[in-house]
Amino acid sequence: MASMNYYSLVLVVVALVWAPLAAVAGDPDILGDFIVPAPMVGMPPTNITGDFFTYTDFRAANETMPWPPQYFVVIKANMGVFPALNGQSVSYAMLVFPSGYVNPPHTHPRAAELLFVQSGALSVGFVDTAGKLYTQDLMAGDLFVFPKGLVHYQYNQGPNPATAFSAFGSAAPGTVNVPASVFGTGIDGVVLAKSFKTDFWTVQKLKAALTPPPK
Amino acid sequence: MASMNYYSLVLVVVALVWAPLAAVAGDPDILGDFIVPAPMVGMPPTNITGDFFTYTDFRAANETMPWPPQYFVVIKANMGVFPALNGQSVSYAMLVFPSGYVNPPHTHPRAAELLFVQSGALSVGFVDTAGKLYTQDLMAGDLFVFPKGLVHYQYNQGPNPATAFSAFGSAAPGTVNVPASVFGTGIDGVVLAKSFKTDFWTVQKLKAALTPPPK
Amino acid sequence: MASMNYYSLVLVVVALVWAPLAAVAGDPDILGDFIVPAPMVGMPPTNITGDFFTYTDFRAANETMPWPPQYFVVIKANMGVFPALNGQSVSYAMLVFPSGYVNPPHTHPRAAELLFVQSGALSVGFVDTAGKLYTQDLMAGDLFVFPKGLVHYQYNQGPNPATAFSAFGSAAPGTVNVPASVFGTGIDGVVLAKSFKTDFWTVQKLKAALTPPPK
Amino acid sequence: MASMNYYSLVLVVVALVWAPLAAVAGDPDILGDFIVPAPMVGMPPTNITGDFFTYTDFRAANETMPWPPQYFVVIKANMGVFPALNGQSVSYAMLVFPSGYVNPPHTHPRAAELLFVQSGALSVGFVDTAGKLYTQDLMAGDLFVFPKGLVHYQYNQGPNPATAFSAFGSAAPGTVNVPASVFGTGIDGVVLAKSFKTDFWTVQKLKAALTPPPK
Amino acid sequence: MASMNYYSLVLVVVALVWAPLAAVAGDPDILGDFIVPAPMVGMPPTNITGDFFTYTDFRAANETMPWPPQYFVVIKANMGVFPALNGQSVSYAMLVFPSGYVNPPHTHPRAAELLFVQSGALSVGFVDTAGKLYTQDLMAGDLFVFPKGLVHYQYNQGPNPATAFSAFGSAAPGTVNVPASVFGTGIDGVVLAKSFKTDFWTVQKLKAALTPPPK
Amino acid sequence: MASMNYYSLVLVVVALVWAPLAAVAGDPDILGDFIVPAPMVGMPPTNITGDFFTYTDFRAANETMPWPPQYFVVIKANMGVFPALNGQSVSYAMLVFPSGYVNPPHTHPRAAELLFVQSGALSVGFVDTAGKLYTQDLMAGDLFVFPKGLVHYQYNQGPNPATAFSAFGSAAPGTVNVPASVFGTGIDGVVLAKSFKTDFWTVQKLKAALTPPPK
Repeated sequence: MASMNYYSLVLVVVALVWAPLAAVAGDPDILGDFIVPAPMVGMPPTNITGDFFTYTDFRAANETMPWPPQYFVVIKANMGVFPALNGQSVSYAMLVFPSGYVNPPHTHPRAAELLFVQSGALSVGFVDTAGKLYTQDLMAGDLFVFPKGLVHYQYNQGPNPATAFSAFGSAAPGTVNVPASVFGTGIDGVVLAKSFKTDFWTVQKLKAALTPPPK
Repeated sequence: MASMNYYSLVLVVVALVWAPLAAVAGDPDILGDFIVPAPMVGMPPTNITGDFFTYTDFRAANETMPWPPQYFVVIKANMGVFPALNGQSVSYAMLVFPSGYVNPPHTHPRAAELLFVQSGALSVGFVDTAGKLYTQDLMAGDLFVFPKGLVHYQYNQGPNPATAFSAFGSAAPGTVNVPASVFGTGIDGVVLAKSFKTDFWTVQKLKAALTPPPK
Repeated sequence: MASMNYYSLVLVVVALVWAPLAAVAGDPDILGDFIVPAPMVGMPPTNITGDFFTYTDFRAANETMPWPPQYFVVIKANMGVFPALNGQSVSYAMLVFPSGYVNPPHTHPRAAELLFVQSGALSVGFVDTAGKLYTQDLMAGDLFVFPKGLVHYQYNQGPNPATAFSAFGSAAPGTVNVPASVFGTGIDGVVLAKSFKTDFWTVQKLKAALTPPPK
Repeated sequence: MASMNYYSLVLVVVALVWAPLAAVAGDPDILGDFIVPAPMVGMPPTNITGDFFTYTDFRAANETMPWPPQYFVVIKANMGVFPALNGQSVSYAMLVFPSGYVNPPHTHPRAAELLFVQSGALSVGFVDTAGKLYTQDLMAGDLFVFPKGLVHYQYNQGPNPATAFSAFGSAAPGTVNVPASVFGTGIDGVVLAKSFKTDFWTVQKLKAALTPPPK
Repeated sequence: MASMNYYSLVLVVVALVWAPLAAVAGDPDILGDFIVPAPMVGMPPTNITGDFFTYTDFRAANETMPWPPQYFVVIKANMGVFPALNGQSVSYAMLVFPSGYVNPPHTHPRAAELLFVQSGALSVGFVDTAGKLYTQDLMAGDLFVFPKGLVHYQYNQGPNPATAFSAFGSAAPGTVNVPASVFGTGIDGVVLAKSFKTDFWTVQKLKAALTPPPK
Repeated sequence: MASMNYYSLVLVVVALVWAPLAAVAGDPDILGDFIVPAPMVGMPPTNITGDFFTYTDFRAANETMPWPPQYFVVIKANMGVFPALNGQSVSYAMLVFPSGYVNPPHTHPRAAELLFVQSGALSVGFVDTAGKLYTQDLMAGDLFVFPKGLVHYQYNQGPNPATAFSAFGSAAPGTVNVPASVFGTGIDGVVLAKSFKTDFWTVQKLKAALTPPPK
């Protein structure tokens, strides 16, 4: 140790330890190649084929989606719909933005998001736990990483649709939609007025806009 | 345990795998009893004493705080201020609520929060990733757990101050304050108006209220 | 394996979750907001309310405990008694020390302990794996961290009762009580005499004092 | 990035990892929002902008690649070239297959691979540890998951080029190319002849084909 | 999900624990001292004795093995055959090499291997992900570590048998036998010929040698 | 932070890696094939050879140890003495017991121990957190697993020496020797007398026997 060049060797880990706080982590480890879901456990092994490891909903969406798209479309390939991902610590989402659409501020409690813009352009941003905003204007072909657990958004400012594919380091990253969680779930208006330092009437207006209609 | 039947026992694990999505995880494991911070590494071992493992800021706050408190006070005992916690995966916060104070919706990206109400009373709530709100009115002596990574708040509705101690399963849980992150960091007004389905004027009003003054 | 039936196969996972507590590690990560225990899995979601995330035994103990306390009281809020903690990697214990009481040397195999002295005073200590003893005299309001897996104790030397709350970075930290584990479980007297470099008679005396009476 | 001092950049990764990439596990958890690499640690926070979280090599490759491609092209977006991924447990690779190209059997020691076929078609396969082969013919838009650590390959059988994007649940998944590792690294011919149950001459032929020329 | 019955739900978790072995990671952490396997869960605790934590197959093999050995013998003490290892993150293998035997290139997807040569001598090697070969000639009493997930082999070049004991940092390290996985599982000959840069005839010869006969 | 100099910043990470051993958990995951220790980082890659992955102290001990052994011998192959184990989550210990020797009750805070009796016989035991003792008489060739973090001992009751090799699922399992930690480190006699429900004189006798002489 005594002969080490301390200066050059060690700085990165300092960053690891002393960087501003906040983040998340990983899926549980597994003790097998993959996890066979319940309905297939009793089946003969020959019933588990390459089909189990294949997911075709992105293709299906591509083939049937009207173009230009009229609505924001998000198709998730996580373990809820693609069970072979269970235990593999990775998932995907396909995002289609009409011109002018904003994917509102949200967090993924269990994973960072690595976004790839396939077509069009997107303006993106996230806020770190020190309250600093980072933004970027992305073109087709660009990648952007939203660190774990932080509030972020995407905005298609341009005249054309945008298509993106996001990779997550969890089979079940989860999503907390900020406007809907805060104003659309019945949190008491007084709590919200005080939290947002605003009047009750403004809170009611936001609640009315963001509360989903009863089913 | 003896009175549980196997049928129900089995289901708990199912829940583990198929429960609605979203959560977080753990601090990095360490390979020693504890981590000695930089300025102490070169010192003789006798310089590391019980003092290193002791934190007295809660006591100091207690002794000097005016009562009833005029402002919300939060004193954190995390690895940023109490370095012995590094690698120990646990931390504390002391919270003092004046009557009527709301701790606004926020998340801890790296840990669940287990809140203990020491005195007074608190109304609390959190929203899961399915958009369901869970609330509770807590009395002195009660515990409440806010699951990892979810939006939650505390509200002291009563006439008296309330004091709480929160335990976290991370030495650096981090905090994302939702109103400040969303409306106080300079996110473009168009993005926010579209996200909250409201008009630009309302967004400007919220930004004005929630943006910290320049230092 | 081939001859196992599904019924018994299922039980192995139950054991994973409900086996008697103690081991070594961070808690397993989960893939959901929280884990619903077996008896609630079949219920409609509306049955899971804020009550599930609330624990009131500390309050109940507070209200009924004679004062000054005659006995050492420890009330645990871990996943064994507060199932909502499962997967949240945090738990609490409330400790009430009569004057003069010693909480004997013990380890928590799965977590560090972050102790907060609420009232009274405590003298505490732990021993690292290099055999060095760290001690401290704590006053009301002080925090002290016992690193993971190390032998530690608390002693109320003062004339008044002491109350403490300990946070743990695991929902199931487990406890190995050293005197009881070593002298109260039937380990052969020769083994103990050689281990403690003492005579058989001394071992017998310690065994007599520390072996719990048959039930 | 281009303007960074490579010498110091290199040290960052050496320090963190202390070695060339590849191993086995989930990525280490971090205690901050993100990890700032060594050369940026001393800089004012304003030097870290959205650019740090952006990666443009996929776009650059797209713009300059001859079409149809004459060679297999793989562009990696892992923490070695995109430092913001450090601690975020996710990475990407862009793969361009000329007609008839085979990406030879290989493993990723640290992550599952979730492959998305953007254009063209690919025939893929992997072998589990019980020695069972799983295959699939993928069309544009399809996803396929190669479980962690298993031997797998991709083959473009069709007349057209194929483009794919693979997501990994690690910022540094690593790659073990099987033919090159086994026959191209100087393992003794006797060892290989016995291992592959073949004659020395066959081994020599394979070694000649797979050993990279000296630089 | 709504249409799933509990019986099948339960099985998914069984798969988690008992699926065929191999993957990538540290073992999952547990929340108890040890995991009692299915058939013992219903039994009175007194049925779990020291026998459960004992494994005698190495002794049995020792006592019955002809000497010198005629065949390569590998006896595994992993959680598949020694259930008490479940959750303990460690396992063993006993390896007996006749003179001249090669244990062919293979990987363990879930653990490093720490090999101890008890008797005889072994020549060993592994290849890192940069394609560098590391070799060593080991004598009785020597230890060698094969890092996680890398291709490695052992060769008994000497005239005498060799015996080794390997420790693994997982209760289920898994094994990917490279020659058998690549040439013995039915991967298309064209894929292999292109991958190994050889002719179809050579591939057929290797397949014939390495494909296990139908049972 | 601003006032810290790099020299001291650097040391914190050294402490992380090289601090005295013992704690609780699985080992940290790594992002490379292996970790090159500080003094070798600056060297050309050719300086890292198979020797780095080889450990010969067991062989050396074997060759020089008097037989029958007069003292208990324990030779550890952990990352403290065999740096290539860093990040590989596995280590070994070689144990030589003279006839009649007891390895006193101890715990390994970071790993289970999988003991293999190479020669002779050993009586072993451990106590779970419910206070139940598990014992076994092991013969040469037997394996026994001591679960993570629990108090355990080994006793050579027979007339012959015994040799054992223990595998651990951590590169730095750590050891807490119970008699020495409790009676040999200066814990106050009153604390110990109360803890062990015995008289002060007995405590003094045990302290005298177990406190190491000043160096």
